[in-house]
Amino acid sequence: MIVNESELAGALRAIVGPEHVDAGPKVHEEDTHDEALTGEPVTPAAVVRPSTTDEVRAILAVADSAGVPVVARGSGTGLCGGARPVADGIVVCFDRMNRILEVDEENHVAVVQPGVTLRELDDALRPVGLVYPVYPGEMSASLGGNVATNAGGMRAVRYGVTRHHVLGLELVLAGGEVLRTGGKFVKSSSGYDLTQLMVGSEGTLALVTEVTVKLAPRLAHNATLLAPFAALDLVAAAVSPILRCGVTPLILEYLDALAMDGIVRAAGLELGVPDDVRDAAAAYLIVVLESSHADRLEQDAETVAELLGGRLGALDVYVLPPTAGAELIAARERAFFVGKTLGVNDVVDTVVPRAEIPAFLAEAAELAAEHQAVVSGCGHVGDGNVHLSVIQPDPDRRHDLLDALYRAARDHGGAVSGEHGIGTEKQSYWLELEDPAKVALMRRIKAAFDPNGILGPGRLLDAPVHAAGATSTASSHGGEGAR
Amino acid sequence: MIVNESELAGALRAIVGPEHVDAGPKVHEEDTHDEALTGEPVTPAAVVRPSTTDEVRAILAVADSAGVPVVARGSGTGLCGGARPVADGIVVCFDRMNRILEVDEENHVAVVQPGVTLRELDDALRPVGLVYPVYPGEMSASLGGNVATNAGGMRAVRYGVTRHHVLGLELVLAGGEVLRTGGKFVKSSSGYDLTQLMVGSEGTLALVTEVTVKLAPRLAHNATLLAPFAALDLVAAAVSPILRCGVTPLILEYLDALAMDGIVRAAGLELGVPDDVRDAAAAYLIVVLESSHADRLEQDAETVAELLGGRLGALDVYVLPPTAGAELIAARERAFFVGKTLGVNDVVDTVVPRAEIPAFLAEAAELAAEHQAVVSGCGHVGDGNVHLSVIQPDPDRRHDLLDALYRAARDHGGAVSGEHGIGTEKQSYWLELEDPAKVALMRRIKAAFDPNGILGPGRLLDAPVHAAGATSTASSHGGEGAR
Repeated sequence: MIVNESELAGALRAIVGPEHVDAGPKVHEEDTHDEALTGEPVTPAAVVRPSTTDEVRAILAVADSAGVPVVARGSGTGLCGGARPVADGIVVCFDRMNRILEVDEENHVAVVQPGVTLRELDDALRPVGLVYPVYPGEMSASLGGNVATNAGGMRAVRYGVTRHHVLGLELVLAGGEVLRTGGKFVKSSSGYDLTQLMVGSEGTLALVTEVTVKLAPRLAHNATLLAPFAALDLVAAAVSPILRCGVTPLILEYLDALAMDGIVRAAGLELGVPDDVRDAAAAYLIVVLESSHADRLEQDAETVAELLGGRLGALDVYVLPPTAGAELIAARERAFFVGKTLGVNDVVDTVVPRAEIPAFLAEAAELAAEHQAVVSGCGHVGDGNVHLSVIQPDPDRRHDLLDALYRAARDHGGAVSGEHGIGTEKQSYWLELEDPAKVALMRRIKAAFDPNGILGPGRLLDAPVHAAGATSTASSHGGEGAR
Repeated sequence: MIVNESELAGALRAIVGPEHVDAGPKVHEEDTHDEALTGEPVTPAAVVRPSTTDEVRAILAVADSAGVPVVARGSGTGLCGGARPVADGIVVCFDRMNRILEVDEENHVAVVQPGVTLRELDDALRPVGLVYPVYPGEMSASLGGNVATNAGGMRAVRYGVTRHHVLGLELVLAGGEVLRTGGKFVKSSSGYDLTQLMVGSEGTLALVTEVTVKLAPRLAHNATLLAPFAALDLVAAAVSPILRCGVTPLILEYLDALAMDGIVRAAGLELGVPDDVRDAAAAYLIVVLESSHADRLEQDAETVAELLGGRLGALDVYVLPPTAGAELIAARERAFFVGKTLGVNDVVDTVVPRAEIPAFLAEAAELAAEHQAVVSGCGHVGDGNVHLSVIQPDPDRRHDLLDALYRAARDHGGAVSGEHGIGTEKQSYWLELEDPAKVALMRRIKAAFDPNGILGPGRLLDAPVHAAGATSTASSHGGEGAR
């Protein structure tokens, strides 16, 4: 029976070796938070770094019997506190489980450990002409973390999100059972889809120790079009016609003028947009096309350019040279960090039916003015996924604004998070808006996986923690944004 | 308190009106079974036909409080007994909930009631240039039934299966709560994905009363290629190279010579395959391509034809005229019914990693010989989904053969069902092969939805039925194939 933190650390050291457990003051600062802009760092009782599934199983057995909260951590690049530790709890960090176990070219499948990063996987797939096309924009993110949040990103309009690429998992239940779900096949009707239930569950159901993902052929050619518009609603109105013109874009991204200005300055980009056009532009649409055939790509680019410059009413259309196109997308990837530098206080990641984007953005602008905030937006407009950077340093006013923005998204038929997840930081907003009967059902599902509630307390559902020593809840641990 | 069948029927009549309840001898024969080849028809206590969600809610309230088993029925086209009634139970038939509530052209979404058939939806979408691309080959199937089984079909290699197109649901829990999941958006990271959990749950978790599906642009042009091969393993080996040549086929279907002969005769097709080629052919590959551009289609067809006739070793390649191509696909759709006429005793729907198909089919042929059975195959070879028609009238020998085939599929990294589901008829095989810890977890999940176990007893998980009057289990109700 473990009764104190030193016994806990001792039990963990016996499992993974002393050098892979950090406890008390030895916990590294970077393990006390993720990239969420809100919420204070939390120092856990211990950070443990397993290297095998069996070690994960043993760690959970210790935690479950002692009633110690467990938080999973990939690369810590999450934006909602999903990997934020719980005081008195364990952080299970997967950075040592970072092997690509198999690249199966015949089946277009890769099998990886959860600590593998998107960069590592991409580097392994390039030589064989395949790609894992989910592209959340942060290549240091881990596959395990991507599974936890159902990560999306710019290419979702063509390829879908993490959910659409995870074919199978190995997972460890809190009670210590190791299960395998799915496999190297693209469909199955053989019982409940536990794989899909795990994707997006933010570490609250089980720990993932292996991921089987579907790959796609890596297409050789791509082209980037940039179209400034005089009004935001024109950008949003352009989405449906583009998606129906016989071309499937790889990326369909909007940025308002403020967001574009920020990333262009930060990256020192020269896009060739004349001053008068830039002055008249309220927002930009970026369209990236890809093809296995260079001639088709050229034809598709022409089709989209004509559409944009014609009845869709763009101020102009620029077909960027390959280098400038890649730089623009790379700069867009860093929009979050640019915002952070510029003093953005929080980021909203709502999703709405894509035809609702103009109305939602108009309402968001009104709400921003009403709450004396600066709100700048960009996002995956082809998916209806809007990222709003909010500058309003006063936590109360900001809270009220976010609450109003989430309500607006819901009223437009949308949801709180399109791809970032709920974590600790968006939990209070989400719980406030979600149907209590659905939340109650989700809690019963969680109890089916994790009866003692040791996994991820204080985030997502905030399942009550029955175990001794695990008193953390969102209300005691959430940051200022989590009221 | 309901104590007998007459009181039950009375309570149901009070909800939906007397003309929409059939009880006792008034139950129609076609409501006593689905299209499964095994298993005897079962007459339920009553068949009830609600027309609104509120009626469904009221029916479940009656059933849950009285502990009466409930089986959902769409069009009854399932192949595994998923809609087979339980004696003393209710069948909730959704054929009156058959309205297309909305076709949303801006968002590429349709909202339908569960009784809408694929044919009805397709007819509504054709005029607006959109398509619901899931194509299980039986256009009288209902959307509700497709959600229950996670229906697949020939176009899955390009578009995926039902799971990949269901964006949201309205569902009614056994306890009477009405929940809405998802919505008109293509991605979300806002809590557990209840939509995905419902898809493929075969009516055992909740009843679906509304389905929101994603649509695709309807492409104008398609072409059908037919390639005979001298050996089955050459067909399977052709799949990966085709999927990597820069072309995404709409359909990639194989038929062995026996299956092709059966459908060609039954449909009276003239495909232009000379006698000597037909005599040398052990199997055929059908490749259907589609495109928004006629010239690209022609180029793609040429690419695939060269590949097939070149290094992939087809005996010949026929580009079928449009009418013959459509007729061949229509004939392939009817393969199940052709098999039924020819005395097929059961159908196997295993899925394996697609690169395992040659090895699996070779093993299947050995097993067939060993069990004195005739096994003929066709299937969605691009998905690794193999349909084997089994002729072996002796139930014991057939059972042993099926068991061996499912074990072989598992040993090749596959699963029992790719798209038909488990139902009552494949339940014993699946339960025998599945990890007991996973089945136990699924049962806990079922209990989170349906604590009294009234939904779909005796199928899939065979959750114990605690309620009085509901004594049916697979072992007492399953047909001969369900031992």
